[in-house]
Amino acid sequence: MNASPAFEFSRSSLQPVPAQRACRIALLGFGTVGRSVATILQGGSFPQLRLDMIYNRRVDRKRVPWVSPQVRWTDDLEEVLASDADVVLELAGGLEPAYSWVKRALLLGKSVVTANKKLIAAHGPELLDLARQQGCRLEFGAAVAGGVPVLCGVSPGLSGDRLLKLCGILNGTCNYILHAMESRGVTLDAALREAQQRGYAEADPSDDVDGLDARAKLAILVRTGFHLQADPQQIATQSIWPVQPADFRYARELGCTIRQVARAELKAGTLLAEVAPTVVSAGSPLGSARNNQNVLVTTGKYGGETVFAGAGAGGAPTAVAVVSDLLAVAESRAAANCGPALVAVPVSNDFRCRHYVRVTPAQTTDAVAALRRTLTSGGISLRGLLHHPDPHDRRPSLALVVEECSTHALEKALTQVQEAGLLAEPAVRMPMVTTS
Amino acid sequence: MNASPAFEFSRSSLQPVPAQRACRIALLGFGTVGRSVATILQGGSFPQLRLDMIYNRRVDRKRVPWVSPQVRWTDDLEEVLASDADVVLELAGGLEPAYSWVKRALLLGKSVVTANKKLIAAHGPELLDLARQQGCRLEFGAAVAGGVPVLCGVSPGLSGDRLLKLCGILNGTCNYILHAMESRGVTLDAALREAQQRGYAEADPSDDVDGLDARAKLAILVRTGFHLQADPQQIATQSIWPVQPADFRYARELGCTIRQVARAELKAGTLLAEVAPTVVSAGSPLGSARNNQNVLVTTGKYGGETVFAGAGAGGAPTAVAVVSDLLAVAESRAAANCGPALVAVPVSNDFRCRHYVRVTPAQTTDAVAALRRTLTSGGISLRGLLHHPDPHDRRPSLALVVEECSTHALEKALTQVQEAGLLAEPAVRMPMVTTS
Repeated sequence: MNASPAFEFSRSSLQPVPAQRACRIALLGFGTVGRSVATILQGGSFPQLRLDMIYNRRVDRKRVPWVSPQVRWTDDLEEVLASDADVVLELAGGLEPAYSWVKRALLLGKSVVTANKKLIAAHGPELLDLARQQGCRLEFGAAVAGGVPVLCGVSPGLSGDRLLKLCGILNGTCNYILHAMESRGVTLDAALREAQQRGYAEADPSDDVDGLDARAKLAILVRTGFHLQADPQQIATQSIWPVQPADFRYARELGCTIRQVARAELKAGTLLAEVAPTVVSAGSPLGSARNNQNVLVTTGKYGGETVFAGAGAGGAPTAVAVVSDLLAVAESRAAANCGPALVAVPVSNDFRCRHYVRVTPAQTTDAVAALRRTLTSGGISLRGLLHHPDPHDRRPSLALVVEECSTHALEKALTQVQEAGLLAEPAVRMPMVTTS
Repeated sequence: MNASPAFEFSRSSLQPVPAQRACRIALLGFGTVGRSVATILQGGSFPQLRLDMIYNRRVDRKRVPWVSPQVRWTDDLEEVLASDADVVLELAGGLEPAYSWVKRALLLGKSVVTANKKLIAAHGPELLDLARQQGCRLEFGAAVAGGVPVLCGVSPGLSGDRLLKLCGILNGTCNYILHAMESRGVTLDAALREAQQRGYAEADPSDDVDGLDARAKLAILVRTGFHLQADPQQIATQSIWPVQPADFRYARELGCTIRQVARAELKAGTLLAEVAPTVVSAGSPLGSARNNQNVLVTTGKYGGETVFAGAGAGGAPTAVAVVSDLLAVAESRAAANCGPALVAVPVSNDFRCRHYVRVTPAQTTDAVAALRRTLTSGGISLRGLLHHPDPHDRRPSLALVVEECSTHALEKALTQVQEAGLLAEPAVRMPMVTTS
């Protein structure tokens, strides 16, 4: 029962800060979240936090009259680093120059709060280590699920459990799109344009739609929840692009709907992980997520399923997570706690689960029989088949529900089906995931 | 923008603990939760935690062979206090002798982890203050919602928001009973007996059924979320005893169901708070809570609604919360952080909301007309009336849905109706609460 060498007590080596002195904040990036943070800090609820400086490129475009005149606006990063700010709040996003800025701030002994999932997914362990060496803090609660406190919910919240599964909706843009398709029958294109008009989706939405944004967040969650270091680029992603209104019609018949789900599971020493459009029960926490909500369902060996849900995107909710982190830094001088050492792990997406597969047969009758034979000889059993052609569909499609099987075996069988010329269009495969 | 005098940086004044030494734990109370904690600690996942001692009255009854022989069993509390345990884990429950034990442990400089909501509701601020003076920790994450990390979700998780409402299902026993009534049409009596057989409900279930358990938890949440000190005894409670199968039939017609809901809301400097059987939307997070689940929905000025849900009762989930707290104590030597100073606040239950009222008129036709007149002259508007007598009901009842009004005004009008002899049985009033 001795402590393992991997465990170390965290050190509290920061210089004492005089009690009752407000914590000075330099904000990098005055976009949607930055403006919301400034609004909250100016609201008077948190006198222990003082916004001292706002940095932005071409800062004159950004100036707003409602920010206190005591705040200094600058477009010179050196001025920020030379200031007496206690905390650098990085809201610029992206890998560079954010990475260099955060590193320089930590090297100067300044604590850092960031909402940058890309940065933390790629460089989190290294930056946490640096923060600890420097006796300062690095907090990134806003990097996953915006206003929903999932990272602190998982650790320290559920640190006493042994987590087995993480399953979540971590991208508000995709959820907005898929929920619009579900509730109003619009196409993905139309829903995406709507999301862009409302400011939820970027002009280039591929990071969201193709799953790269959710993948970075999943990699951070895997570290926090499983103490495993997975290369985000090893996590398989499926775009939501192929999802069509027909898929929602079939899903509804199954009592289900479709969401972009990020999930990870520990199985016999391997990390299974994937981000993909997924068929989920309509009444489940994942299926109930509306608009740009985020949800995380954790499954623990002892505690069972725990659900965290709320506003995952948007300026104000993300700003809540940022301000919570600022308070944590201001109210405790403990250095960054890296938690247990991370163990590197290979990643696979060979989940065993039920699948939904939409196929558009080349010639209806013959092709379907041949398709069934190919699947069966690949060890894939059909659980059911749905066929309700929409009069507007140019080529009628079928939906197959496939019994629990290896994802890779199913992919292989579908490739054979495709290569045998049985399909007029590539098959659309989605895992079916059950949470309570 | 200076720090208010109410804010103080927390102190980190504990004696340094040699790195890599396991944290020594003395467990008080070897009941359901205590056994689950011992199971987790013996599972090998947490080498930084070492169970050294188990105290229980008449400890020989409690001994089990699966506990490591290195653990000392005792029924002498003085032996616990004289030991070199770093943390006293109080799982005995109740106000005394738990209060004295915790106080003595803190005075000896031992940190304390407890799942005792009664103790924390009644003496939390005083004990936290003592822990801080002594440079040690007092953690009670398991006191509210068992395995669902709602306290750390609210603070630090949502500390950057300004919370306006807390609304939750905080008692697993009542939820088990009401969910059984909803899903299987059984009476409250039968559901309670079932809960007792499954070990969810105590032999004397009145603390659960009458709302006293949920009230203690709500008082703790109000402190954590609103930084307000409300006397738990000032929080109004309504028992779930009067809830009948007929109420579930009427609720279903309204697209609703019934749960024991604890809620608190800040309104113009007053704290509105109450624990009561409540009509909630069937598909909402509160209405979806099954069996002995717990749910908390917070509403923040900036982040909107956030939902926490999961296993709120039972040995293993509660043990997860306890072990998470033990890890927090082991991994950081920072003294207890009291957070912002608490402001005492008077409590009212005069919520303005819609209500459901079930009445059993004395003489059907005349009484109903007189009842409507009395309500109307009290400023109470009816939104609708449901009447589907069950052939088994001895006396047929009506359900009224009352437009949003003051709870006190409605109570007054119902008292008048009762005193005028218009009712054969007292009216059953339940608030109707909407969350997204």
